[in-house]
Amino acid sequence: MDKVNGFLFAGINCGIKQTKKDLGLVYIKDGATFAGATTRNLFASPTIRHTKEILKNKNNVYSVLVNSGNANALTGAKGYNDINDILASLGSITKQPPHSAVMLSTGIIGKRLPVDTIKKGIPILMNELDASCNHFATAICTTDTKEKVFSKKITINNKTVSVLGIAKGSGMIQPNLATMLAFIFTDACIDQQLLQSVIIDAANNSFNRITVDSDSSTNDSFLLFASNKGVTIDKSSIEVFKEAVEEIALKLAKEIIIDGEGATKFVELTINSAKNDEEARAIFYAIANSPLVKTALFGENPNFGRILCSAGKIKSSIIPEKVVLKIGEHILYRDGEVADYNLTKLNAYMKNKNIQICLDLNIGKTNFTGWTTDLSHDYVDINAKYT
Amino acid sequence: MDKVNGFLFAGINCGIKQTKKDLGLVYIKDGATFAGATTRNLFASPTIRHTKEILKNKNNVYSVLVNSGNANALTGAKGYNDINDILASLGSITKQPPHSAVMLSTGIIGKRLPVDTIKKGIPILMNELDASCNHFATAICTTDTKEKVFSKKITINNKTVSVLGIAKGSGMIQPNLATMLAFIFTDACIDQQLLQSVIIDAANNSFNRITVDSDSSTNDSFLLFASNKGVTIDKSSIEVFKEAVEEIALKLAKEIIIDGEGATKFVELTINSAKNDEEARAIFYAIANSPLVKTALFGENPNFGRILCSAGKIKSSIIPEKVVLKIGEHILYRDGEVADYNLTKLNAYMKNKNIQICLDLNIGKTNFTGWTTDLSHDYVDINAKYT
Repeated sequence: MDKVNGFLFAGINCGIKQTKKDLGLVYIKDGATFAGATTRNLFASPTIRHTKEILKNKNNVYSVLVNSGNANALTGAKGYNDINDILASLGSITKQPPHSAVMLSTGIIGKRLPVDTIKKGIPILMNELDASCNHFATAICTTDTKEKVFSKKITINNKTVSVLGIAKGSGMIQPNLATMLAFIFTDACIDQQLLQSVIIDAANNSFNRITVDSDSSTNDSFLLFASNKGVTIDKSSIEVFKEAVEEIALKLAKEIIIDGEGATKFVELTINSAKNDEEARAIFYAIANSPLVKTALFGENPNFGRILCSAGKIKSSIIPEKVVLKIGEHILYRDGEVADYNLTKLNAYMKNKNIQICLDLNIGKTNFTGWTTDLSHDYVDINAKYT
Repeated sequence: MDKVNGFLFAGINCGIKQTKKDLGLVYIKDGATFAGATTRNLFASPTIRHTKEILKNKNNVYSVLVNSGNANALTGAKGYNDINDILASLGSITKQPPHSAVMLSTGIIGKRLPVDTIKKGIPILMNELDASCNHFATAICTTDTKEKVFSKKITINNKTVSVLGIAKGSGMIQPNLATMLAFIFTDACIDQQLLQSVIIDAANNSFNRITVDSDSSTNDSFLLFASNKGVTIDKSSIEVFKEAVEEIALKLAKEIIIDGEGATKFVELTINSAKNDEEARAIFYAIANSPLVKTALFGENPNFGRILCSAGKIKSSIIPEKVVLKIGEHILYRDGEVADYNLTKLNAYMKNKNIQICLDLNIGKTNFTGWTTDLSHDYVDINAKYT
């Protein structure tokens, strides 16, 4: 079910990590149209600079090499040269056109890539290529506890189009117009410019609505590949295609939150009737990143005062007297004061794994929904020890 | 030593909390000139509205009633009426002028004050008034593990001026142009407008440079009282006086960080050679509030990549190639890449309780220093359980 015409995958342990898979390859024999969105972090990894160059040239992409365990970030010109060195080695084996390979990295920041170790892994990857993406999906994981793969078939002009999404991400998650590592593969035939417009919208409606810990990573990348083997997507069919891409992107984004570092809760936070999208997003992030809100969620503690306190700490058009706050079906605040509510039922609701919070501002017409996690002892453990 | 001419203090348990002190009174027989800075949180407590009215009228203040255990926040018009009800009861005992009393509250958000319980405590407080402020300093604490009191004597025109500071604060700490609850008392004689200018500068150089958890509280207040019993401060002597107030405010601010919820580290973070104050502050808070930076500090883990990653996640004028990052004396990043450093010595440094981090941007002339804590298991425990 997860196969897409034109793409072969492999994933192995090459020795960056002790035993877990750490190197993945996507091989596209006839090349793919390529679109992408990358992190805005000012200390972006050299992999981002390299990927942006490929995007700028609008070259077709013939292979995608991804390592986990080392982010190749803060490595400067040396890190950039390492990428070219590794991709030259890949090209000498694949005989694909120059400047047609993308390399992405994820893992610890601030260390040079083990170039020779990775080079030695390339021929092994080439021997293991397969239409199934499972080993690849495993090889790109870091603190993730599971692979993240979703696929969908849609029908356009009576023909089937496949859309396959693969992502990794668990910590350092508050994507900024891009995300962790996420890939979507399709066999559709589509113009590069149209593909790029699809990915920007898909990012804004998925990865740009989640946060684990407020930290946008140095390596966030969301990439979309079309192998051009199937039906042609044009302006008449773009909406159906876009919907499918957004659906897969949103499933991957939610899966990243469910698998957030140490997460015990999956929290859907809606800001309704906001003045505009910018304010709604700012209020969403102020609440979703508040350690006091997150630890209360972990404690299954209905301390909703913290939700309003964190919403109120930033400048906005909020008028307290107009605000209505709901957790689940429980109205907790309205008319400028705490509402009558049933504490026993509210306490019972807080024990759910899925928590819905809705802040209705009643000042405008913009609704925004995003997703976040709680902040648990496991989050502290994972990040106190991770080196 | 902590006595200031004109001010009497008391602190008792009146029954808001089970046994700990929860109600404090400052009694100023002849009144004090009053200046203050209060929270910008949009869901500010009715105590803030009340305090702002007193400040606006520039009335002298004759008493300050403070309760802990209940913040009287999100209580709307009812909460505001509760304050007037309680202060009317206080006034009937003190016979002080109307609109001359301030009431502040700190503790759980979203519950009405136990008005009768507090009223019953007032005559008891009046009987316990004393020149020593220790019981008052205890009565205003919530999750604080110790009282925060600092004092200083300065000489102006050959006469001694006393400056006494008292604060509480441990969680929900990222003051915004004001702070938790902090009081400074002086016996100096000073014009209200001049006093107000002193408090704004003092806040910007102390409480507005600290963060425990990014959450600006609904009740933050930093208040300055002058009993006018001593030497007159005018424009010729204002600098000496301001320096003393700032010194005490800074000591209180640092003490709040040292006593931050669950804190095991006291972290001084300097942003040097920034473009301007606004950018320096934004970069300071991006780093100081990053859960990945804070958990690494808790783990004594020198994962400095997270420091640069969090600095880079916001828009700024940072040019990575110009940045120099130091932890203690260890240069970890410069010239756009990781520097050579001694990991053994760096690991040893991370075990200190006091950690110094310096990010030199080399793009401008503004230097900024602020303070923060780590993020520990105890922080999660305190805030998962606190109700």
